[in-house]
Amino acid sequence: MTLVVQKFGGTSVGDADRIRAVADHVARTRRNGDDVVVVVSAMGKTTDDLLRLANDVSSVQPPRELDMLLTSGERVSMSLLVMALADLGIDAVSFTGSQAGIITDTTHTRATIIEVRAERLREALKAGRVPVVAGFQGVSTDRDVTTLGRGGSDTTAVAMAAALGADACEIYTDVSGVYSADPRIVPGARRLMRVSFEEMLDIAASGGRVLSLRSVEFARNHHVPLHVRSSFTWEPGTWVVEEDVSMEQPVVTAITHDTSEAKVTVTGVPDRPGIAAPIFRALADRKVNVDTIVQNTSLHGTTDISFTVPKVDLATSVQTVGSLAPELGAGEVLTDDTIAKVSLVGAGMRSHPGVSATMFETLADAGINIEMISTSSIRISCVVRADRVEEAVRILHAAFELSD
Amino acid sequence: MTLVVQKFGGTSVGDADRIRAVADHVARTRRNGDDVVVVVSAMGKTTDDLLRLANDVSSVQPPRELDMLLTSGERVSMSLLVMALADLGIDAVSFTGSQAGIITDTTHTRATIIEVRAERLREALKAGRVPVVAGFQGVSTDRDVTTLGRGGSDTTAVAMAAALGADACEIYTDVSGVYSADPRIVPGARRLMRVSFEEMLDIAASGGRVLSLRSVEFARNHHVPLHVRSSFTWEPGTWVVEEDVSMEQPVVTAITHDTSEAKVTVTGVPDRPGIAAPIFRALADRKVNVDTIVQNTSLHGTTDISFTVPKVDLATSVQTVGSLAPELGAGEVLTDDTIAKVSLVGAGMRSHPGVSATMFETLADAGINIEMISTSSIRISCVVRADRVEEAVRILHAAFELSD
Repeated sequence: MTLVVQKFGGTSVGDADRIRAVADHVARTRRNGDDVVVVVSAMGKTTDDLLRLANDVSSVQPPRELDMLLTSGERVSMSLLVMALADLGIDAVSFTGSQAGIITDTTHTRATIIEVRAERLREALKAGRVPVVAGFQGVSTDRDVTTLGRGGSDTTAVAMAAALGADACEIYTDVSGVYSADPRIVPGARRLMRVSFEEMLDIAASGGRVLSLRSVEFARNHHVPLHVRSSFTWEPGTWVVEEDVSMEQPVVTAITHDTSEAKVTVTGVPDRPGIAAPIFRALADRKVNVDTIVQNTSLHGTTDISFTVPKVDLATSVQTVGSLAPELGAGEVLTDDTIAKVSLVGAGMRSHPGVSATMFETLADAGINIEMISTSSIRISCVVRADRVEEAVRILHAAFELSD
Repeated sequence: MTLVVQKFGGTSVGDADRIRAVADHVARTRRNGDDVVVVVSAMGKTTDDLLRLANDVSSVQPPRELDMLLTSGERVSMSLLVMALADLGIDAVSFTGSQAGIITDTTHTRATIIEVRAERLREALKAGRVPVVAGFQGVSTDRDVTTLGRGGSDTTAVAMAAALGADACEIYTDVSGVYSADPRIVPGARRLMRVSFEEMLDIAASGGRVLSLRSVEFARNHHVPLHVRSSFTWEPGTWVVEEDVSMEQPVVTAITHDTSEAKVTVTGVPDRPGIAAPIFRALADRKVNVDTIVQNTSLHGTTDISFTVPKVDLATSVQTVGSLAPELGAGEVLTDDTIAKVSLVGAGMRSHPGVSATMFETLADAGINIEMISTSSIRISCVVRADRVEEAVRILHAAFELSD
């Protein structure tokens, strides 16, 4: 007997027709003899609608109450899905995050799962029922309703799959898998049959929007095979699995890009040991996710430190760093929100040191200036002008012969 | 220190503006030095919208899932109200039925409250906070989410007031109190300053829609003074309190009417002891709320039994009784859905036996035929043709001089 967790995102349950289509698919899986646990997000734009309503009502939104508000969304989609399954003769039962035993810490709006107490789900499965679980939500150790932040429903699905020892976790979405580049930019982009957790982490971290970084980390740590696929075509998608060292790996698996970040530069920072620490500690305290960091060569005893942050955190970052600059004896804080990042990801890079050279030459030949560089063992990222990034993706996709 | 429970119905929290108006009122009460517990319904037509969605998705709606679906409504209104209060500097905190300790039996869609474990509310009050509680919902002894059925939010408010020993329970609604008759039918109808629990029970049972029968019963049993008032004008409304025997009571307090029922007649029922029991047992088993019952004088060893039921239960009633008729040796089952009921309610009736005569004469003078009569110690109800009922209300209101 196989146990599979199937997670359906907001567009997959966007209206009554979509919910019935999902019910059909779950029923088909169940009738094939598999045990199924379903995890659902809120319907379509529900979350945005609720946030708009909150803004209409008040400029003050206590995080605990925001969580209470937003978690109403999954209650609606999950109970409707159970009804649609009942219509097909499938015995299903819905569980809130709390009922499903998703215990989190007390950090409202972006809580961390501490433990999954899945007894009620196990009982339901034993009774031959299909548990339908609210994604994105849990209950804190203080007995308050919490949410898991962006991509939280994926995390719920992976945590459930880990807790129940599921054979696979299927993430249904509105795209049909992970591609060698964004198909809207590179028409010849290829759907990847299989990527490793490590590659998927770097793809997610460098702009691939299909899976959240956090859910991939959770899946890797708990050895949960992921299958990213479409709830519109239902065709097989991309498997995200443990790296298979016995297979020959392609040098480059995918080209990703990210236009959601901005660059901050602090000029004239005195070049002494530990000077960068207070800056990035202060940003961490304000929950700003700093990405690429570059420190220029020291000139006359001072240096420039540049880093990228999500555009939504730019104002906070400037304020935070600006208030620190005088006490550090630093100069100006400059910003630039017209940058973008293009990255190569591939497990094969580890054994192919020439990859970065090819990347830099390809960009140079097209006259695209590289402003910052950062690397991991299986990724190279370059910050370029935002208006050149799509061209950069296309020429790199061609240079590494990633099309079919 | 006074503790007040304030309950706001769906129209009172119908949109962002209404929610801010409610927050203003709660803040004012709090700043006057009173402790406040707020109970809210879902916003406006939320429940109807969710039911429509359920019908779009499936023809099968397991009651447990209907409860899960509908309880999303109060989560939205209560968290928005806490945000609006935060905007006014009032420290409030929302509680679901489960978090507020409303423990019910396992009868989904119309659960009964077994116990209120209000520890979290007491802690919040002690900390100077305003608890905002989801009306209409609880958690069952099986740890499933339940709803309390029609008028359930009023019941939540009264149960909370009883559990916390509140000094009063204010029920805010879109009318400004209890009237001597429906003001849409009798323009001179008077707002009642004060009615007894017993009168309010008979008013609610005979068509007065302001309070649910169940919440009034709960309030009477637990000695919770109710104050029914408007969330649009905020003026004082009607108090529902223990009967004050020291005061002289008006003979008739209010004229009520009800057009929601239909009449069922079983003809040719053998007139032997106990013959009516199986009929009404069978209806009770189907959860049909039978109101007025009349059994005619026996003629040639058989009798006719007539009773009224809610129109929504008419089909069930006919089916139930029809399948019993042959084994009882009864004749036909006839129905009539063009009836209505007009009632006089007043605690003073107990000591004024002439009231029914005046009622019958008044209707007779207007040529309005009485088809069924039923009485309690403080109420007389007559079933008449539906198209004459508004006239009946007007002439009775005038005959008993109930206008200002």
